[in-house]
Amino acid sequence: MEFSEHIKTANVEDVVLQQPLHPPSRGTLCITGHHLLFSHREEQDSSGQVLLLLRNIDAIEKRASGSSGTIIIKCKDLFVLQLDIPGMEQCLNIAQSIETLSCLDCVADMYPFFYRPCDAIFCDQWGLSNPEKHYTEMEELHERWRLSTVNRDYSVCVSYPTAVIVPKEISDDTLKKVAKFRQGGRFPVLCYYHRKNGMVIMRSGQPLTGANRKRCKEDERLLQAVIEDSDKGYIIDMRSAQQAQQARMTGGGFESKSCYNSWRRLHRHMERGKTLQESLIKLVEACADKSHNMGRWLSKLENSKWLSHVQTALSTAGLLVECLERDGHSVLIHDSDGIDSTLLVSTLAQLIMDPSCRTLEGFLGLLEREFVQAGHPFQQRCAHSAFSHARLQQESPVFLLMLDCVWQIWRQFPLALGFSEALLLRLATEAYASNYGTFLSNSDMERHAAQVKDKTQCLFRALLKPREREQYTNQLYEHTELAIWPSVHPQSLQLWRGFFLRWTQQTRHLEEVQQEIRNMVIESGKTALSF
Amino acid sequence: MEFSEHIKTANVEDVVLQQPLHPPSRGTLCITGHHLLFSHREEQDSSGQVLLLLRNIDAIEKRASGSSGTIIIKCKDLFVLQLDIPGMEQCLNIAQSIETLSCLDCVADMYPFFYRPCDAIFCDQWGLSNPEKHYTEMEELHERWRLSTVNRDYSVCVSYPTAVIVPKEISDDTLKKVAKFRQGGRFPVLCYYHRKNGMVIMRSGQPLTGANRKRCKEDERLLQAVIEDSDKGYIIDMRSAQQAQQARMTGGGFESKSCYNSWRRLHRHMERGKTLQESLIKLVEACADKSHNMGRWLSKLENSKWLSHVQTALSTAGLLVECLERDGHSVLIHDSDGIDSTLLVSTLAQLIMDPSCRTLEGFLGLLEREFVQAGHPFQQRCAHSAFSHARLQQESPVFLLMLDCVWQIWRQFPLALGFSEALLLRLATEAYASNYGTFLSNSDMERHAAQVKDKTQCLFRALLKPREREQYTNQLYEHTELAIWPSVHPQSLQLWRGFFLRWTQQTRHLEEVQQEIRNMVIESGKTALSF
Repeated sequence: MEFSEHIKTANVEDVVLQQPLHPPSRGTLCITGHHLLFSHREEQDSSGQVLLLLRNIDAIEKRASGSSGTIIIKCKDLFVLQLDIPGMEQCLNIAQSIETLSCLDCVADMYPFFYRPCDAIFCDQWGLSNPEKHYTEMEELHERWRLSTVNRDYSVCVSYPTAVIVPKEISDDTLKKVAKFRQGGRFPVLCYYHRKNGMVIMRSGQPLTGANRKRCKEDERLLQAVIEDSDKGYIIDMRSAQQAQQARMTGGGFESKSCYNSWRRLHRHMERGKTLQESLIKLVEACADKSHNMGRWLSKLENSKWLSHVQTALSTAGLLVECLERDGHSVLIHDSDGIDSTLLVSTLAQLIMDPSCRTLEGFLGLLEREFVQAGHPFQQRCAHSAFSHARLQQESPVFLLMLDCVWQIWRQFPLALGFSEALLLRLATEAYASNYGTFLSNSDMERHAAQVKDKTQCLFRALLKPREREQYTNQLYEHTELAIWPSVHPQSLQLWRGFFLRWTQQTRHLEEVQQEIRNMVIESGKTALSF
Repeated sequence: MEFSEHIKTANVEDVVLQQPLHPPSRGTLCITGHHLLFSHREEQDSSGQVLLLLRNIDAIEKRASGSSGTIIIKCKDLFVLQLDIPGMEQCLNIAQSIETLSCLDCVADMYPFFYRPCDAIFCDQWGLSNPEKHYTEMEELHERWRLSTVNRDYSVCVSYPTAVIVPKEISDDTLKKVAKFRQGGRFPVLCYYHRKNGMVIMRSGQPLTGANRKRCKEDERLLQAVIEDSDKGYIIDMRSAQQAQQARMTGGGFESKSCYNSWRRLHRHMERGKTLQESLIKLVEACADKSHNMGRWLSKLENSKWLSHVQTALSTAGLLVECLERDGHSVLIHDSDGIDSTLLVSTLAQLIMDPSCRTLEGFLGLLEREFVQAGHPFQQRCAHSAFSHARLQQESPVFLLMLDCVWQIWRQFPLALGFSEALLLRLATEAYASNYGTFLSNSDMERHAAQVKDKTQCLFRALLKPREREQYTNQLYEHTELAIWPSVHPQSLQLWRGFFLRWTQQTRHLEEVQQEIRNMVIESGKTALSF
């Protein structure tokens, strides 16, 4: 594709930029295939520039004022800036270019395929890990579990990676049959092995029992193989019992007591999809409210229900950890399709239980396994953020909700996580618009087709380079083997101001404190354990 | 008074204590004239003890269960504990002793008169400062201002200290006449001199114009002398215009434009008294709500209106600073009696403007001048906190609201204040129940009559001893000459969890972080400027 087709006006002089925390400034605006670049008139070096990925732009508003025009640009990371452009025609040209180029659909046209940093990493392995490596490292698994490559050509499950971990006694043929009985082909796979007691977390899509209560002997056998001779397991179904019942009418369903009698089913309803997206939109709208009315703010905050979603996610993860760590039973979790709240809850549970997931590397590895490789459809979910007026399609801030929950844990246990709030903010931005290929496409299959691993850079590897690592390390980190149980009392949960109010003065001051603490640590020669 | 009259049962064995963050424990309960002491059975040293000032107890609840009884003790600092006492009679005796001894009215019976620490300080000067010393130190004042001892025997104003700062050209006789025209005899006095531009903050009670719009030439002359030849001053009246009008019906009033034509009056309504007390009660009730409903919590938080009061106080202080520092005019503030919100706002304004008020010593000195010596009636205002079922008399958490506002500033400017959150928490506790005499009585006159300065220890001096000082110093403090303007957007203000949720696990974790930072500072050899 020729980006130049979409750029009628590439350069405009004498543009006034207004952005939060800065005085207005005058300079040159430049639109390229992937970027908006603003250079201040007085400053020659790059400190006087604003460089914005067009992909980061969620919505724009145009306004005419006399012969000139104003464009308000609202970014997916909640940054809002305003450009006053002399000449209405130029203004309209710029706006049109932005509108087109910010919503390119074709993966291969996206910036990660053009990004070539001078310190680009080219090594054998693109990400931090892959299922094969993960399996090899976990020797305790080898006796009862095996690595299956039944999905090596993505024909069994389009959203799974090429290799998955399953009970040893279950053959690939059985897996193929089970896949037909589970939504999206997502047959139950192992995602976490708890070294302390040998119990596991499995995840899957819902069983396709339908109105006729269809059974699948292979599915039942697979789950029986998971618990083997231990007495029972738990199924956490992230829909209400009523929703699970209703799902049968459209071909879905749940694991009935009679067919899975070693498993105890618990229902915990979690919102997903559109409801979650609307909650985000309401919250961001509330945060932008300029009225000085405290009651109105608190009531809008409540009305957005975002903190209720945070609470539900954390308490469902807590429930999972209770079943697994306290009661000592394996757990299968799913909702309907198993690619949203299922991954959210399994990620949080692992962070709560497993100290190795709490280091910088460990956490990035966890996200790679449980979101990227596990098939969270980033391209669909993060197509738009809170400002877009486009009709909602598949957008849903599941990944952002997960980051918010991790922030709540981070805030409640300031010493227990090896990474900083800055990492969570960076990830929240990168998921929506990035130089890197990590969050491109919707599945391993799509990334393979687009040659993402051959043609783009890996975000997680970049975050582990020395300079970035220093910035994203929690200097106060102290390793603990214990599970870190977050409080889910409403009083204990807070608005993630660092993200939702990030472009305010106050957040800047908190950054100063972080910097001060970093300096002190360097002075005192103390090095965090994850260094 | 004989405390023993009120103690029918002094010791009970086999009592079970339940308190937050600890497992239940069995031991001996002992009631003395001023304390409740619980000693764990297994532990011999003082770490196994709970020592509680009876004065700290706000309310108790009794419950019978079989032959034994349970007492739930709710403290003014929001600590709640439960005692299971064998034997109903013993339980009732204990409860009755607590009820009587926790509400002693006579100042001389209170614990500060009995408290003799081994490192007691006996020095010439009881507090940190006094008006004479304050005046002597501020040489810039001497040309136009003088120290008046017209109130040396408290006959002009019962709530003022013996010396106050007034315009040089105003004689003591004039002051006596002005005192008759101002509520409670609180004639306008200087409370802050802004070195950068020579402007001042004055405070007073309302003028007693009454329904007939009475004038007082001396009052008008005093205010004219304040602004001298500069063009004008501002009066910030912390009542709505309507309330100020209504006050005339009961003998009060406001400075009319015609009589005070160099002064511009601004009305900013601030709640005081009962409304504030009820707000606190609602907030504490909301914080104790155990339901897991996020919407309910946010709605109760809103309904308590506490954060709205925080916002109003901070924004009124901001208005004062704007008038004085930005516009360069002197300001007179008052509400009706000038001993509550007047002091709150003048304290906050000084903290915002004046770097010397932001060190540990400076802040304690500010509180001593603007609350203790200026006549905030601590004994009345802090007689009860949020749990008492007693009929509200004069209780009002004005001092606590001030501390909450300071905490908001501290949180927004984590480097700008030389003291820690722990200091604010300590002060919040001490104001309601203390070993020290600092917050006893309602005025300088009452403290003088009770010989508080001769017979009790001074809290502020104790807080500056090396060990305490270390604990209450902000290790990240960096001196700045600039005014620190707090954001008063509703989104920028937060619940002071450190106080309102202080007895929860989460708050403990944050204390760990503070400790960790302290350790790092000591390691790195960095010493905060206020050391």
